[in-house]
Amino acid sequence: MTTQKLRHLIEPEDFSLDELNHLIALGEEIHAAPEKYSEACKGKILATLFYEPSTRTKFSFETAMLRLGGSIIGFSDANTSSVSKGESIADTIRVMSAYADVAVMRHPKEGAPKLASLYSSIPIINGGDGGHQHPTQTLTDLLTIQTFKGSIDNQVVAFCGDLKFGRTVHSLIRTLARYNIKKFILISPEELKLPELLKRTLVDVYQVELMEVKTIEEVVEEIDILYMTRIQKERFFNEADYARLKDSYIIDKAKIQKAKQDMIIMHPLPRVNEIAYEVDTDPRAVYFEQAKLGVYIRMALIMKLLEVA
Amino acid sequence: MTTQKLRHLIEPEDFSLDELNHLIALGEEIHAAPEKYSEACKGKILATLFYEPSTRTKFSFETAMLRLGGSIIGFSDANTSSVSKGESIADTIRVMSAYADVAVMRHPKEGAPKLASLYSSIPIINGGDGGHQHPTQTLTDLLTIQTFKGSIDNQVVAFCGDLKFGRTVHSLIRTLARYNIKKFILISPEELKLPELLKRTLVDVYQVELMEVKTIEEVVEEIDILYMTRIQKERFFNEADYARLKDSYIIDKAKIQKAKQDMIIMHPLPRVNEIAYEVDTDPRAVYFEQAKLGVYIRMALIMKLLEVA
Amino acid sequence: MTTQKLRHLIEPEDFSLDELNHLIALGEEIHAAPEKYSEACKGKILATLFYEPSTRTKFSFETAMLRLGGSIIGFSDANTSSVSKGESIADTIRVMSAYADVAVMRHPKEGAPKLASLYSSIPIINGGDGGHQHPTQTLTDLLTIQTFKGSIDNQVVAFCGDLKFGRTVHSLIRTLARYNIKKFILISPEELKLPELLKRTLVDVYQVELMEVKTIEEVVEEIDILYMTRIQKERFFNEADYARLKDSYIIDKAKIQKAKQDMIIMHPLPRVNEIAYEVDTDPRAVYFEQAKLGVYIRMALIMKLLEVA
Repeated sequence: MTTQKLRHLIEPEDFSLDELNHLIALGEEIHAAPEKYSEACKGKILATLFYEPSTRTKFSFETAMLRLGGSIIGFSDANTSSVSKGESIADTIRVMSAYADVAVMRHPKEGAPKLASLYSSIPIINGGDGGHQHPTQTLTDLLTIQTFKGSIDNQVVAFCGDLKFGRTVHSLIRTLARYNIKKFILISPEELKLPELLKRTLVDVYQVELMEVKTIEEVVEEIDILYMTRIQKERFFNEADYARLKDSYIIDKAKIQKAKQDMIIMHPLPRVNEIAYEVDTDPRAVYFEQAKLGVYIRMALIMKLLEVA
Repeated sequence: MTTQKLRHLIEPEDFSLDELNHLIALGEEIHAAPEKYSEACKGKILATLFYEPSTRTKFSFETAMLRLGGSIIGFSDANTSSVSKGESIADTIRVMSAYADVAVMRHPKEGAPKLASLYSSIPIINGGDGGHQHPTQTLTDLLTIQTFKGSIDNQVVAFCGDLKFGRTVHSLIRTLARYNIKKFILISPEELKLPELLKRTLVDVYQVELMEVKTIEEVVEEIDILYMTRIQKERFFNEADYARLKDSYIIDKAKIQKAKQDMIIMHPLPRVNEIAYEVDTDPRAVYFEQAKLGVYIRMALIMKLLEVA
Repeated sequence: MTTQKLRHLIEPEDFSLDELNHLIALGEEIHAAPEKYSEACKGKILATLFYEPSTRTKFSFETAMLRLGGSIIGFSDANTSSVSKGESIADTIRVMSAYADVAVMRHPKEGAPKLASLYSSIPIINGGDGGHQHPTQTLTDLLTIQTFKGSIDNQVVAFCGDLKFGRTVHSLIRTLARYNIKKFILISPEELKLPELLKRTLVDVYQVELMEVKTIEEVVEEIDILYMTRIQKERFFNEADYARLKDSYIIDKAKIQKAKQDMIIMHPLPRVNEIAYEVDTDPRAVYFEQAKLGVYIRMALIMKLLEVA
């Protein structure tokens, strides 16, 4: 029994750079020999509290806990929970604390996982809160870069697509800024540019080199990491704008022909059509491996929060 | 292979006082050393058949089974089950008997778990049937009283709120009446008083001392156990009656100032606003511990029904 | 690490007769001593991808995997999955391949599991695709016949009810035709007769003896296996036709009085009213045992596909 302070993961900033690097290193070790960890969390229970649907994140966490020998309780739809009886998040989490050892929460409202962490007696992981944060996607992305590029430092990282609303992108950019990134390239239409405030923070606080362009073609040759994002219909005020823009930031074989041979193409998935299917067989396409690495980093995270790492 | 008769828990009366006390004692032992039971039900499967939503009861059962080393199948929504194809409860339970080792059923219709038990070849636990019974909540309440008061006998037990419709209250009162309760105090508005028939049974059959009042204040000093209940909107014919009554039976710090220092405040949860949040930090508030004890008593119950206790 | 080709089960024809017989034999061994297999798939994960509801098939697979010591991830409703974000089946299965070791898919569209298998890096089991195939029901039926009749060969097999739309029936008939069935008897109303093409295949390709009748009574004395099916309301163009036909192919005690003492009555379940409840206690009624055998054959199948058999 330690009296150590309970740790949560609400946003990537909750972890120091040292802690992030330890997590990534543990993720690599698990990747190399997952069977060594198959009983690391035996007897432990993860609660998956999904107030909005998310196959991918939910399954990734469930797989991570099962691969550690633990088990799962949870819901994937707030309508089949006590929420419909008017229970507060504070009460829900206090009761879940009586059942589980660690919980992941996805919620449509920004700040809900933070609120939960204030009342919880078990570690809370933010599984995505509105347009705000998605820190375990960021961890997944870091492990992917480390795995395929050997280092997070000294890379030219390009983000393409919806840079305005994508919480995945904001979370990752903020975190990469804490490393020694060589250059950020932002590829997006005028309407979906990275928010001004975030750009200012990057330049003023982190002194990163930033470059904004409108097309992939003009920068493709210098990119080390190409991070693609989905352009979501629901982000647009009208159908016409969506139709005009959605295809502009699609990559296909032709567009990446001049790219470096060791460039990697990442995507948080689900993909709709922003990456042509023909790209899937290109060795530079690592987005499905990225999904797999998401399991390993979540295994590392759960171990850390349960203090078995 | 024993030829012992299959046991179910449909209502608390299915167990003798001796059996209840054995269950409570086992619940206390599990509470004291849960890790001793972590493989008690290894290889066994619990089916959770929830024909209406209930986060709390479902998760409590799932946690109980997982903490015993067993596993879970089940549904939390009748629409994703064969029920939508017109299958009878009798057939559903016969098929579930082919899959699982024990089942818990929640159903909006009174008597559904009883019906299921008649066709089942595995033990059936009633997880709540309409306004009728909720026996594992009663078991949870008994273990909570035993844990915090050292004994179920010789207590002054007050029930506050909706005493007319609350199945939790009826189930617990009937069961406590089989013990040597010093006095029952019923605190409710005229519209939500305990049903006359139940009162008559308590007095005539069990010879308990009964007292009915309209406010907490007039009796708070003599209460050992204050059992709060939620006043449900859906129980009222019109919005105005609900609005007028819902706040009348709220407790806050002021209302319990004169209460005994070792009084305990219980609540089956979810709570809406019948207990002010400021009460949560009062050492007399045990409702979140009560939720945790619900796991231990369910572990004891599952062990008993599977004959591994 | 073997370089063996990945195996899937999309339709019964994917397995040779030898392979089917090995599976059935393994199913019998598991039935005889299930505890011997309780850790056969320890550490393995089954993904249950149910794009339409199915209690029975889903629970049967989940039970099978849990009884093998493995665990489960999955969904029972496409609305709580990424499908609602427009993800293709190809992408979903590639991501699920990153999480699970084997997957079962039920889908309303014919061919969906086949499509999934083309993109999957883990074995895919067809859990029912539209009106097309339901191969694990067929395996269940084969094990049931083997268990209760001692052999699949030399039986007189009668199918009763909806022989036009029932995928269960088509799948089983095609597979039985590969054995030495003595005679097929088809009992159905004119409107629900076995499709002409399938009949022609049976006679021309497999040289089976086929007999078509309108009532159970005229053939009941010579039947070894009576396979009953549900007449589904949704298959009819109008309510009147359904009402007129649905009761015509109901069996009760009277109808089977002249049947052989060792005839068996099978049904894929759920049953609505095509078998009177009074038949349930007849020793010839084996449909609930059939449901149980479905778990054992699925255990055998999962073991085979994961190459632990």
